[in-house]
This record gives sequence, C-alpha cells and structure tokens, in this order.
Amino acid sequence: MFNRYLNDIKVYEAGKPIELVVREFGIDAKDVIKLASNENPLGCSPKVVEVIKKNATKASIYPDDSMFELKEELCKRFNIEKNQLIIGAGSDQILEFLSHAKLNSNSKILTSNVTFAMYEIYAKQFGAKVIKTASYQHIVSEFKDKIAQENPDIVYICTPNNPTGDATKKEDILEIIQATSKESLVVVDCAYMEYVEDEEYKLSPNDFIEFENVIYLGTFSKAYGLGGMRVGYGIANSSIIDVLYKVRPPFNITTLSLAAAIEACRDEEFVKKSIKLNKEQMKRYIEFANSNNIEYIPSFTNFITLKFKKPQDSSKIANTLMKNGIIVRDLASYGLNAIRVTIGLEEQNSKLLEALSKEI
Amino acid sequence: MFNRYLNDIKVYEAGKPIELVVREFGIDAKDVIKLASNENPLGCSPKVVEVIKKNATKASIYPDDSMFELKEELCKRFNIEKNQLIIGAGSDQILEFLSHAKLNSNSKILTSNVTFAMYEIYAKQFGAKVIKTASYQHIVSEFKDKIAQENPDIVYICTPNNPTGDATKKEDILEIIQATSKESLVVVDCAYMEYVEDEEYKLSPNDFIEFENVIYLGTFSKAYGLGGMRVGYGIANSSIIDVLYKVRPPFNITTLSLAAAIEACRDEEFVKKSIKLNKEQMKRYIEFANSNNIEYIPSFTNFITLKFKKPQDSSKIANTLMKNGIIVRDLASYGLNAIRVTIGLEEQNSKLLEALSKEI
Repeated sequence: MFNRYLNDIKVYEAGKPIELVVREFGIDAKDVIKLASNENPLGCSPKVVEVIKKNATKASIYPDDSMFELKEELCKRFNIEKNQLIIGAGSDQILEFLSHAKLNSNSKILTSNVTFAMYEIYAKQFGAKVIKTASYQHIVSEFKDKIAQENPDIVYICTPNNPTGDATKKEDILEIIQATSKESLVVVDCAYMEYVEDEEYKLSPNDFIEFENVIYLGTFSKAYGLGGMRVGYGIANSSIIDVLYKVRPPFNITTLSLAAAIEACRDEEFVKKSIKLNKEQMKRYIEFANSNNIEYIPSFTNFITLKFKKPQDSSKIANTLMKNGIIVRDLASYGLNAIRVTIGLEEQNSKLLEALSKEI
Repeated sequence: MFNRYLNDIKVYEAGKPIELVVREFGIDAKDVIKLASNENPLGCSPKVVEVIKKNATKASIYPDDSMFELKEELCKRFNIEKNQLIIGAGSDQILEFLSHAKLNSNSKILTSNVTFAMYEIYAKQFGAKVIKTASYQHIVSEFKDKIAQENPDIVYICTPNNPTGDATKKEDILEIIQATSKESLVVVDCAYMEYVEDEEYKLSPNDFIEFENVIYLGTFSKAYGLGGMRVGYGIANSSIIDVLYKVRPPFNITTLSLAAAIEACRDEEFVKKSIKLNKEQMKRYIEFANSNNIEYIPSFTNFITLKFKKPQDSSKIANTLMKNGIIVRDLASYGLNAIRVTIGLEEQNSKLLEALSKEI
C-alpha cells in the first residue's frame, strides 16, 4: 500500500523526557535533572522569555512566512545575502529538505561511524543507503577512500560531532570537499559551533559559500537556548537554497518561534554567558574523569562523552542514574560503552558527579 | 544535481502577513485588518495564553516527543485509541507524511477542481501527477468517473472545502470511499469541521476508522485559535498511523505548541464562543451579499467566498482593500473571480463591508 522502501524503517525513539521519569519512577518533576539532550542549562535569554510572553496572544496568527526580520538578523550576523539562507524547524528540518531534494532509492550517503542519528534516519525515509567510515572521528583518508569507492550523493560532516564531542579541522573539511564529486552535496553540520574557540576548528558559513555543493547548518537549539522552539538554518550558495525552498512547507516555524529567534539574535550576551558557564563546568568533568581514571573524548561542545571499560556498563550506569532522577544519554545503541552528559548548572553537575562516583 | 521531478515546482507564496502591508503601504500595524487566513478573530483561549506565558521559560527544553498528554486529550475527545492518532505541525504536516509515504513519480492524486492548495504542492514535491474533477464541489459522479479512469493513489476530500466554504454530505463521502481501490488512500480533511452544524455534513473520525485506507484530518488552527502554533492531527486505522510514524521527524511540534494544544482541548467553552460569534457575523455577510446582488457560496466555515461578475474584478477589489489596510484572499489564482473573506470581529466586518460597498 505504501512506498516499499519504508518497510525496513524503524521508528526513532527520542530521549526520555522529564515527564516520563516522573511517571515511571514517581520522582517529583522538580527533582529530576535532565542532562541528556544538550539543552542550554541556563534556559534561554530572559529577553526571549519576555518576547514570548508579550506575543502569547498571537498564538492564533500565522507567522510571517517570508521570515523577513529573522533573515535580516542572520544575514547581518553571518554577512550573507537573503537568498543564501533557509530557515527550518530546527536544523533537523534542513536535513529533511536536503534528503528530500537529493536522495532516492538509488542514493547513498556517507557519514562517520558515530554521528548525529538523523542523517541516517532521513536517508532511509527516502530509500537511500547509508555508508559509514570506520572511525567516529572524521578522518580525511577514511572519507576519501569511501568517496572514491562509493561516490555518495551526500557527505555529512558533523563538527563538532554529536554524540562524541570531537571536532574536525577546517583544512580537513576542505580536503574532503575537494575529494567529493561536484554532483554530490557536502553538509557541514555546525549545531555546536558556538562553543568552539580553537581557530583551526572554528567555521563560518562564508568558508563554504563559494562552493556550489556545500551547505552549512546552524541552530538556535543549543547556545541560543531554544531547543523547544525548533529553529535552525541552512546557509549555502543560492543555487542550493532555491531548490530547498521547493520542498519547504509554508509556515514551517511557529509564530512564537520566529519572535523568539529574532530576539535571541539580539542578545549575544546571553550566548557569551552560556559559553562561559559551559567552559567552567566542563573543567570539573575533566578533573573528575582524570582523577577517577575514566576515559573521555575531549569536547568542543556543551556535552562530554565518558567511556567505560568492562565490566563497567554504560546502560547499567545510565539506568541507575535515571532511577536517581538524573537523565543522561546512554550511547550503547551507537556501539559505544559510553554515556553522553550535557554540561549542566553547577549544582546539577555536582549531583551528577556525586551519583556517578558511586557507580564506578 | 537534485531529484529531477523538482525542476517543475514553483515555490508556494503564502498570503501577505500584516508586517508586509505595514512595510509596503506604510499603514500602522494596529490599523491593519487581516481577514485572509481564516484565523480565529477571537485569538485563542485566554487559558492558552496563560499556559504559554507560564511555560515561556521552557523554550530551551525539547518537547515530550511521545506527546503523552495531548494524545490523552484527543483520544478522550474522539473516543479513539492512541495508536490511531498522529500529531503534526498543522494538519499540513500530516498531508506531507501521507504524500511521502504513498506517492512517487508514478503516482496520481485526485482532488476537486478548487480546493486546499497544499494537496497539489505536496504531491508535486514527491513527483506525483495531479488530477482534478470539473467542479469545485465534491460531486460523487465526477469523483467516481475520475477514479475509474485514473485509479489515483490518493483521493482528497476537503470538507468543508477551502477556499470555497461548501461541504460534502457524509453519504457522498462514503460512496466515494466505496468507489476507491483499497490500495489507494482517501484523505478526509476536516480542518473546519467544528463550524459544521448540519447533521448530514457533520463528520467524526469514527465514521471512517473501520476503513484501512481512510484518514481523518483535524487541526487546532481554526476553531481552537492556534494557527500560529502549528498543531494538527490525523486519525485512522493503526495500520496507516504506523507507517506515517516512519516519516515523522522527532520533535515535530514545539514545546509551547504542545502545552497550548493540551490547554486548548480543555477549554471547549472558547470553541463554542468562537462558533457562536462566527454564526452571528456570517449572517451580516449574507445580508450584505443579498442586498448588493453579490453571488456567494453558502459557507460551512469561518469564511465566506464572494463571487463577482465582470467587469468587477476580484484582484482589483482585493488590492484596493489592501491599500485600505484590509487583507482578504483573492481567488483569481484558483480560477475564480472571487475573494475569500474570513469572518472577523463585529467591528472588523463593519469596516470590511463598508470598504467593499464602495468597490462594487
């Protein structure tokens, strides 16, 4: 009855929300600490909260589908033109547009071995095959080999990489782009780029806009603290953006999301504060890992991936933490004996580190 | 470079938002009357406004992707099971899921001659061909003929129909379903069903849930006043819903949209008030049309379609109204010399009728 390539798809299960832990373990919602979805522990800018409250009565009104003001803000921030920009319901939706526009049952995508799950999910939704390199890191030689062998239609580079936290140097990315066919797309997913300080790893959309087959993705979900509002963007040569507009549904972000994202652009101080907190608290996790002999992946993001050695078991550890009201992301399903922990507020991190020290 | 069937697609242009009229004609935003998008003129429930304000600080938190509470509310309202329900970013997104799951470059859809534009747009996004009957109304014999000739993969029935406002009798819909192949889908789009009072036309999801190839669509955008929040739903046999879940992106509605929709379900008084206002004000348009010898389509919705006779020209009339700060929907692009006017508040309607009387 339905398109045949859908037969093999399993439905994606998102991380457990606080509500579920409340329901399943009878823990009071205010006592649950969620460090599982890389949400900003400071919430969002207080100015954004005010704008949402002020605009609450506009819930009945469709958004400005041209997204005039938000585009103005982003063009200013990145020094780009409006026809080089498309807004999505999270950068997730830009992934969906790209998959829709580029992939079909004869297509292939290439990703690193452990990376953002949605690349694979959207590829399969359009019947495409998923090729992975051997390493979770984006190793140039591994990518070049697979590109030469498989000629993938989309090459995904997630930097900093989720769920591992490592990043790829700009020169490496440019080398992967050069190795890719001009008929294939390279997607540089920079959802966590705001947290990167090292110049060798820091990217901006303008590093890629000259290429007619490369797109840069960004999001308001992380450093800007709008995970719940679903706003992200793609920036590329207008020849790519024009096609993505053909598969964009109208009104693809809500009226309040639009207002929130516009205001978020105007409060860079909040972003700076978020990055500062993250940096300070990240140090505590590194110290903890070092002094407890836990291996970790040095992180360019707002989360850290802690690796365990058997008989320590990441699923067991994540489960025990959950029963204590602390939600982290078990990476067993990614083939890693590891957990991914979002860097939280000082007190949240203290509680997590205390609970974790009892488990290891 | 991209999927070839996208070449012929033109990008959808949404109705002009208030902001654009402000920018283009220099009219103060508070003086602009928008009766173009069938938004609820009462806004949304004051209880929903409170919930949005209360939850504004949760903008950073991803929504409960299981949508537990909202599903509970809808299951209670419609007396259905959770596995018979899927939530979308507007019922629009359910149309996208259906098109994705069912259509490809070899597919066809069947619609009435003038109906909701997104059926055609989504069909083309997946390379499918669009077949239309001769009339804007859903005439059983016309549908049966086209079904016999073309064997379409999806048959769309929009009732009440947008942008015309007429509705289709339940017995007629059942006859169209019976005439459709069991391998094809019938979509009964009931975005405006809350406004229908006549028993012959009133539908509920349970009228169709026994069929394994029929889906009922509803929305929070109209009578519930949440157009800007993008929440709609599809209700069908679980065999259909299971497949739609395979093409649903996670977190497809925002945290505040979820909270708003849950609260909207709990304030049926607001919906009743909205319907009552609509009924009272609709009478004024009918009286105006009758006394000015304007033809209109009797409406089952929160809008009315006024038809003009040459030399009267709908585009010219809509443009003149816009320069006066009143936005309505010109239906020239649908092949009708007509405008669609959302039934507004008493004062808004007075201003529109006054402005219109000068134009005709």
